[in-house]
Amino acid sequence: MLDAVLAEKIKASVTAGFAEQIAYTQELVRFPSTRGNEHAIQDFVFQTFRARGFAMERFDMDREALARHPGAGRFSDAHSTAPLVVGIHRPRAEVGRSLILQAHVDVVPPGPSDMWTHPPFDPVIVGDWLYGRGGCDMKAGHAANLYALDALRRIGLQPAATVYLQSVVEEESTGNGALMTHLRGYRAEAALIPEPENEKLVRANVGVLWFQVEVRGHPTHVSAMGAGANAIDAAYRLIGALRRLEAQWNEEKAERPHFRDEAHPINLNVGRIEGGDWASSVPAWCRVDFRISIYPGVDAASAAQQVENAIAAFSRNDGFLANNPPRVTFNGFFAEGYALTEGSEAERRLGEAHRLAFGKPLETFVTPAYLDARVYALYDKIPALCYGPLGHDLHGYDERVSLKSVEKVTQAIALFIADWCAVEPLGS
Amino acid sequence: MLDAVLAEKIKASVTAGFAEQIAYTQELVRFPSTRGNEHAIQDFVFQTFRARGFAMERFDMDREALARHPGAGRFSDAHSTAPLVVGIHRPRAEVGRSLILQAHVDVVPPGPSDMWTHPPFDPVIVGDWLYGRGGCDMKAGHAANLYALDALRRIGLQPAATVYLQSVVEEESTGNGALMTHLRGYRAEAALIPEPENEKLVRANVGVLWFQVEVRGHPTHVSAMGAGANAIDAAYRLIGALRRLEAQWNEEKAERPHFRDEAHPINLNVGRIEGGDWASSVPAWCRVDFRISIYPGVDAASAAQQVENAIAAFSRNDGFLANNPPRVTFNGFFAEGYALTEGSEAERRLGEAHRLAFGKPLETFVTPAYLDARVYALYDKIPALCYGPLGHDLHGYDERVSLKSVEKVTQAIALFIADWCAVEPLGS
Repeated sequence: MLDAVLAEKIKASVTAGFAEQIAYTQELVRFPSTRGNEHAIQDFVFQTFRARGFAMERFDMDREALARHPGAGRFSDAHSTAPLVVGIHRPRAEVGRSLILQAHVDVVPPGPSDMWTHPPFDPVIVGDWLYGRGGCDMKAGHAANLYALDALRRIGLQPAATVYLQSVVEEESTGNGALMTHLRGYRAEAALIPEPENEKLVRANVGVLWFQVEVRGHPTHVSAMGAGANAIDAAYRLIGALRRLEAQWNEEKAERPHFRDEAHPINLNVGRIEGGDWASSVPAWCRVDFRISIYPGVDAASAAQQVENAIAAFSRNDGFLANNPPRVTFNGFFAEGYALTEGSEAERRLGEAHRLAFGKPLETFVTPAYLDARVYALYDKIPALCYGPLGHDLHGYDERVSLKSVEKVTQAIALFIADWCAVEPLGS
Repeated sequence: MLDAVLAEKIKASVTAGFAEQIAYTQELVRFPSTRGNEHAIQDFVFQTFRARGFAMERFDMDREALARHPGAGRFSDAHSTAPLVVGIHRPRAEVGRSLILQAHVDVVPPGPSDMWTHPPFDPVIVGDWLYGRGGCDMKAGHAANLYALDALRRIGLQPAATVYLQSVVEEESTGNGALMTHLRGYRAEAALIPEPENEKLVRANVGVLWFQVEVRGHPTHVSAMGAGANAIDAAYRLIGALRRLEAQWNEEKAERPHFRDEAHPINLNVGRIEGGDWASSVPAWCRVDFRISIYPGVDAASAAQQVENAIAAFSRNDGFLANNPPRVTFNGFFAEGYALTEGSEAERRLGEAHRLAFGKPLETFVTPAYLDARVYALYDKIPALCYGPLGHDLHGYDERVSLKSVEKVTQAIALFIADWCAVEPLGS
């Protein structure tokens, strides 16, 4: 447990650097780093980390290695080619426990700009809220990792154990960025990812599959349309069939230890649809992008098989689809969920750090969303701590993060680092 | 009635020029003249008509004049700016009856190229079939108008009355091209439009409305999705409400003289859909392009009001839509249907020409599709003869037209011109 005087010094140091931390977070938000467009921000992060004195590595996705791994998301044309960036802190003496501090720079699309109060990549601050696509999810956390280490440095300290500061991509679509750091060989005794978890620790999360279903048929002039020959209608019938699979999976929640109390743990999202060419032509094609979640412990491949089976079974009995079997493509996440085993030393120490920053115990919860933490939990088999600030409307319009919350979370992270890794005087 | 010897000479002359007519039709098909992209083909048509010696006019849409006309389609950003082209034949002596020969050059989108056996704008001939987007609808008819006049010229004859050879755009989206020729002041005693009507004459057709419905809402991360907050789902519920309006209009067919024997005269087409940005974001927007037909005699404005009322009434009782009223935009056809009055001299003469070409009587039928003939029937109040060759899959893939049918239809058109306009020796 940290010395109380040191703890106060660390908290004060975070506060002293917080104006700079906000400005840096705003710089990150200004990069429109949607999928595939993270090259510039990763170069900026690389230069920033290098200027701090970290040993640097920068590497590409190894497609072949990923393709051999059961937890890799499927490649598509949209897959990012931006590099992964890792800053390495090596202490003079390895006294404490090693740590991975991870964050992703990719953000989901902003959607139509006119639905935003401020332009999506303009990091406007109103009261306690920092607005902008990706500010909450998770550039505030990305900056918090760096500024927690800065806070130690400001008072002449550094971790007395190896720390890997990882900046990844593809968190919003495949999870291949995090998985690539694993395949590259980085290992530590715990990992912390400051995703916007409303100041709580994630106990368990779901896995996620992405897939696209394409329906094609024989189009005609609208004057010759017959019932059932419309690909948009057929796609909607298929959505119904998949909602029945979703309902069936939700019924299984009683058997799932972490999710039995959740109202609706399994969500099927019809995220994107596009079909047809012309108001007066019967649409002959329709593509729908789906995202469905799976319980931790469920194998992604067997869940994918269930999805394919449900689509095939429905199509066999549908007049239009029987003759035009839909094409199913898994084109993103192919990821299992994870649970954070209770009682780990890492969780205990983070709980203590949180109490020192917030003055109250750390709560845990389960979340029906994908998290990169699954890589560290499932494949490194280490405590993977997903814990971060309060925010609203991530993936929505007017996404925003609470600056007060970011400050306290940064304090908690700095306190956790100092406790978990131990500290030594600055220098190399 | 035409002299039998002259009739045989005209038929033989069409046949003599038919290889050239096919080649010219293929040239027309090579232009990818989708909406807005008809500039090049209209210039080609202008040069072709001018080379034949027609007096030429070429003019733009008069947006203000169109906006004042109740039958004009609504302008949108997609509206064509290509010119209208008219070739004018003036006889030495106005002995016969004047005639408008009209055809459109715009074609509907080809859709995904890989669904075509041959590239959509490659006019491949296999057996009796000429393939290609727009070959059937209606570049074959466009060429037939010109080559029917050429057939007379080949035997030293020309119409003994004014003939307007009109080449228009926007037939597939607003009907504003045909309406613009009316607003420009062209008038004749009959109009013939060789749309692909399977060698029959159109007795009546429907009017058509185009509209787009946009649903918008408040998006969230998929982990926070609640039932009903998905704009794609909401759009599908709205489609259901509009299908109930379609069913109600179909029930009224008993009161509609020309359509009471049609199984399904009123078709609502869900032609195009697009919504959402990302598989893992709950979609906050969805746009759907609709086309619905109305009975001849039904006012377009009152039908549009019924559409708006149906959407508003449904939305008031829908949890999501009540707070996010859909936006309805009429963005194309705003056209009434027409009926060709039985017993006209023009119909009788076309029937006779058809019998001479095909050896059998001309049949009539009603069609649930928009036709430019409505402009001449409703606003010029003249017999508007919509009659043309056999084809398949217009608006679909592998659109094709029967060359044998085109040849006979061209004979019928040439015979009709010679009879309706009378003929005089070539010259001016």
